Amino acid sequence: MPANRLELITIGTELLLGFTLDTNAAFLGQQLSAAGVQIIRRTSVVDTPAEIRAAVDEALTRTGAVLTTGGLGPTRDDMTRNVVADLLGLPLVFNDDVWEMVLARYRRFGRAPAESNRSQAMVPAGATWLRNEWGTAPGLWIDSPRGLIIMLPGVPLEMRKLMEHEVLPRLRARGSDTVVRSVTLRTTGIPESTLAERIGEHEDAIAPLSLAYLPGLTGVDLRVTAFHLAPDDAAARLHDAVTRLRSTAGAWIYGENDDDLAAIVLGELRAAGATLAVAESCTGGLLGGRITAVPGASDVFVGGAIAYANDIKQRVLGVDPALVAEHGAVSSEVAAAMARGAAQAFGASVVVSVTGIAGPGGGSADKPVGTVWFGLYRDGVVTTHRSVFGGERAEIRERAVQGALLGVWRGW
Amino acid sequence: MPANRLELITIGTELLLGFTLDTNAAFLGQQLSAAGVQIIRRTSVVDTPAEIRAAVDEALTRTGAVLTTGGLGPTRDDMTRNVVADLLGLPLVFNDDVWEMVLARYRRFGRAPAESNRSQAMVPAGATWLRNEWGTAPGLWIDSPRGLIIMLPGVPLEMRKLMEHEVLPRLRARGSDTVVRSVTLRTTGIPESTLAERIGEHEDAIAPLSLAYLPGLTGVDLRVTAFHLAPDDAAARLHDAVTRLRSTAGAWIYGENDDDLAAIVLGELRAAGATLAVAESCTGGLLGGRITAVPGASDVFVGGAIAYANDIKQRVLGVDPALVAEHGAVSSEVAAAMARGAAQAFGASVVVSVTGIAGPGGGSADKPVGTVWFGLYRDGVVTTHRSVFGGERAEIRERAVQGALLGVWRGW
Repeated sequence: MPANRLELITIGTELLLGFTLDTNAAFLGQQLSAAGVQIIRRTSVVDTPAEIRAAVDEALTRTGAVLTTGGLGPTRDDMTRNVVADLLGLPLVFNDDVWEMVLARYRRFGRAPAESNRSQAMVPAGATWLRNEWGTAPGLWIDSPRGLIIMLPGVPLEMRKLMEHEVLPRLRARGSDTVVRSVTLRTTGIPESTLAERIGEHEDAIAPLSLAYLPGLTGVDLRVTAFHLAPDDAAARLHDAVTRLRSTAGAWIYGENDDDLAAIVLGELRAAGATLAVAESCTGGLLGGRITAVPGASDVFVGGAIAYANDIKQRVLGVDPALVAEHGAVSSEVAAAMARGAAQAFGASVVVSVTGIAGPGGGSADKPVGTVWFGLYRDGVVTTHRSVFGGERAEIRERAVQGALLGVWRGW
Repeated sequence: MPANRLELITIGTELLLGFTLDTNAAFLGQQLSAAGVQIIRRTSVVDTPAEIRAAVDEALTRTGAVLTTGGLGPTRDDMTRNVVADLLGLPLVFNDDVWEMVLARYRRFGRAPAESNRSQAMVPAGATWLRNEWGTAPGLWIDSPRGLIIMLPGVPLEMRKLMEHEVLPRLRARGSDTVVRSVTLRTTGIPESTLAERIGEHEDAIAPLSLAYLPGLTGVDLRVTAFHLAPDDAAARLHDAVTRLRSTAGAWIYGENDDDLAAIVLGELRAAGATLAVAESCTGGLLGGRITAVPGASDVFVGGAIAYANDIKQRVLGVDPALVAEHGAVSSEVAAAMARGAAQAFGASVVVSVTGIAGPGGGSADKPVGTVWFGLYRDGVVTTHRSVFGGERAEIRERAVQGALLGVWRGW
């Protein structure tokens, strides 16, 4: 069976109560589309046996191919495995290989599994189990007379890894001759409306590809999508569209798809033989956290100071208290002194500093909440820049982190 | 009909492609629960008439109450109104009041409506239309022999406003005398299976309340939910359930509902008149970032060092290079020295330090990826602790941040 259409069933009462955002569904939609498989319907059900059973039963009858997420854990509210086995009339068989996988995972963390974990080694007769190296619940793959059933855990990391390593290769092996494929161009430092004015002229030329503007805290992503085209045609049209968009918006495009500005900055500094340190006040460590999220950051990034209290700006970064008294902690002068001080304390060739008012309190008429001063030290020279960011505390801090990276990337 | 259970149908091909996160579903789940209405199933379908019709038809048969979002706009792919009217055998009637609402909105923005907007004034015979002051698509409310159908636009702002002003008041007026209510107990530092062993005994005693285990990067949340009980009964049973769970798992419970461990830690330190600093290696600033996400952190948290390079551990925190050479940067000795050094450099009464191997590289047989050493300085005394966390780089770092907060909160 080709399975270029399937239904997705996400299982969990918490999804329906609205406490958990169904990020798995979005991920699966994208991954399956790229593999030429269209999700024709998505159903979320509470985790009672009757509801799970009805949803799987109906989907098999309608579409003949189902992917479920959730309900494979060791506790009593994890019942997907049992319900599906019962629906298909398959006995559950204790599987020594799965049990060994569970034991190995516990050994790695120096613990012993609970008795309840044994339920995770029960496999419906005739099912293929999918190795899970990121948790204790194996995935399950059943080719039954009623159709294809793929069961994955609901924990996002485990679901994603099992998709990548076990499910997508098997689905691709079944074959489909068109693809749904996207390229995302990532911009920063330009508002959505200005961007739209610059690139709107291309929209007709790139048809039938669609162009979406996706504004976020780190900038505006531009997504171009080819729907249901032959792979070669999709690739050629996407290449043409990207070339057109880069021709008018290239100055704001720092990368494509999953590219991260922090990784781009680190790559450029690495190529230049530079080292980087940070001096953070209002971002409180988030900038360092974002930079060190990039694997291999350590050959460029040496560290930094979280100078949250004014006293620490003096004590660790040598900022003259008179500057703070005269200009305030959120000022060009203090941002510059923080950058210079960190360059000395940390011995880095490039330093970026951030001092601002993240709110909710602390704003004033001339320095409203959202005001952020940046300092950039590069080989002995310091420049500063002021931005005023919108949003609440969390958004302002995220935008300030991106603003600091923008400054290092190409100046403000 | 009381309608304390309904099905949600979200309509839109983009939802199934995964490019749009279904935030409407989460909002509706929370709002309806609070009004005593449980979403028993959620279905997302592509916007073809056959799929929409089948989904609404099945939901009416199963549950007798449906709320749809999406497909009420003026374009050709907006067909929910027509499909539902056809399914119920109701003719569509041009409604002058709705048309006036559309015209008024266009006037407000100084524009004239397109001819296609007239479709938005078509109302199924016998339906109640719901005024939309935030867009041009009215909501629709149909009490039919087959059950209740509520249709809302898919644009999040319009959907939210129509829920608040038109739908929830009507649902409440139907007088559901029961509520769906949850309490979440937040645990950290205990694996899901161990937690289940400790509290499993209560599951029968707290029935009919349900108990869900929600594992995440910061610990396992326990959600107890009362479905369809009278408000007083729900409150009493939730109180009893919480008391029982606290009696056996209290040592791992740091808060309820939206409580954040960083805020709890800051509150306790504030009450004790203490100040806090951090010394971060593998978390690279994330710990400081998490702490300073709490508004008002500045009266307790003074700052910290991001000592990513070994050289910085010496230079800023005074860690003896001999310790690093002998024991490695990820060791009890270096964690302790980082905590002591930061206490001196930052003048704080409490310091927590983190040094670990976040991966993907850098692991070894005796120090695998995920190994993290913590140091805790408190009024001159230093203790250390080792954890081995699962997951990849991002998960290990998040877990290390929570581990550091756990150490300050109550030791490891």
